Amino acid sequence: MARYKAVIEYDGTDYVGFQRQANGPTVQSELESALAAINGGESVAVLGAGRTDSGVHASGQGVAFDLKWTHGADALVRALNANLPRAIAVRSAAECANGFHPRFSARGRRYRYTIYNAPVRSPLQERFAWRVWSALDASAMAEASQYLIGRKDFAAFGAAPEEDGHTVREVREARWVSTDVNGGVKLDFFIEADAFLYRMVRSIVGTLKLVGAAELSPAEFGEIVASADRSRAGTTAPSNGLCLIEVMY
Amino acid sequence: MARYKAVIEYDGTDYVGFQRQANGPTVQSELESALAAINGGESVAVLGAGRTDSGVHASGQGVAFDLKWTHGADALVRALNANLPRAIAVRSAAECANGFHPRFSARGRRYRYTIYNAPVRSPLQERFAWRVWSALDASAMAEASQYLIGRKDFAAFGAAPEEDGHTVREVREARWVSTDVNGGVKLDFFIEADAFLYRMVRSIVGTLKLVGAAELSPAEFGEIVASADRSRAGTTAPSNGLCLIEVMY
Repeated sequence: MARYKAVIEYDGTDYVGFQRQANGPTVQSELESALAAINGGESVAVLGAGRTDSGVHASGQGVAFDLKWTHGADALVRALNANLPRAIAVRSAAECANGFHPRFSARGRRYRYTIYNAPVRSPLQERFAWRVWSALDASAMAEASQYLIGRKDFAAFGAAPEEDGHTVREVREARWVSTDVNGGVKLDFFIEADAFLYRMVRSIVGTLKLVGAAELSPAEFGEIVASADRSRAGTTAPSNGLCLIEVMY
Repeated sequence: MARYKAVIEYDGTDYVGFQRQANGPTVQSELESALAAINGGESVAVLGAGRTDSGVHASGQGVAFDLKWTHGADALVRALNANLPRAIAVRSAAECANGFHPRFSARGRRYRYTIYNAPVRSPLQERFAWRVWSALDASAMAEASQYLIGRKDFAAFGAAPEEDGHTVREVREARWVSTDVNGGVKLDFFIEADAFLYRMVRSIVGTLKLVGAAELSPAEFGEIVASADRSRAGTTAPSNGLCLIEVMY
């Protein structure tokens, strides 16, 4: 028996989130089914780095599990992918130290949030993006995002998780990239931090969207960050625009 | 009553193609349902530029229909989009001449075919791309593609449609664009012609993939084009990588 760490990608559209739960299919339960299938039917528990919400995607979720496997890491990836549904895949796997924990060993996480900014619907964009109808000012959103950088109390954008108990996080990067696509503009927000509060990225994006729509100035966004007051943030952005792209170890 | 032309976008995954038929939902029948809904329940026939196959996508399909509508083109777009399923949208609409026909008035079509080239599955790419496991030589594929340019008999890559009867077409552009994405390479093939034979793009891509895999040389691909012999082409590439991006008038 050895511990393996793996990088997982999924289209979260049809899942009620990463973490195993009673009210619908989850990424964790699909992974555990695939692991049991290659483990002679015996159950294998999967540990995850981030509990992505219902509808949130991942291209770089980190997981770990203990398994007796003698055919090498490449064959493990192939065997798991043959047993996983189309919407979930293992991108890579490797044996690791027994003490490795995908969440507690993580030194950082990187998310991408995508807005598709156009006056009409786009079926090819909207599976992985939040459609915002009114034109957004991308440079104002970029300016406001700089107030996020650094080690701060982010209580304005989320509650402390149970096992942690505080709301201070270090945001290392927060930048927007604009691309013209199919009659609209795709606005990708890349944010990296040591860790995130529950729904923190979606709450930040929902508030930055108010800056883009000129309902808040960049300086007012800075005041909201500094206030650490949850009631001042904007509406939480929808889950389908969010993707966990990397967990750093 | 006036004739309108419109540009349509759709995620073709769950449709049996554009054209109305008995064995499942089609884009045309969904458009006709939405038009009937805004036309007091009276049926409206939709003409299409291209009969995209089951599973093929479009960001720029051309259609036309006759409708009595007094609220302007912007309101028409909004009303139709409110009555269409999530996977289909009208991007724009405008009144046009009564003699306009989206297929017979078209002067060109442009398709994109996307290959995701990586040794492992990618759920976030594969809805809109053909995954090819073995590494492809993009420069050999680009070189081979140049044999497609010009006015030629393309019988090697498809049969003549009923209403036309010949297999000569003019390919104006055929180029590949490579992008690194999520541990793999996305290979986008852009091809423009006056018109295409049935399954011509997918047959060309299936054969160019053999060039990328070094099973054919670029010169041998050129010989296949020149042969006009359907039996020499490669396997037809899967439908989910194909997208009709523009119809030129």
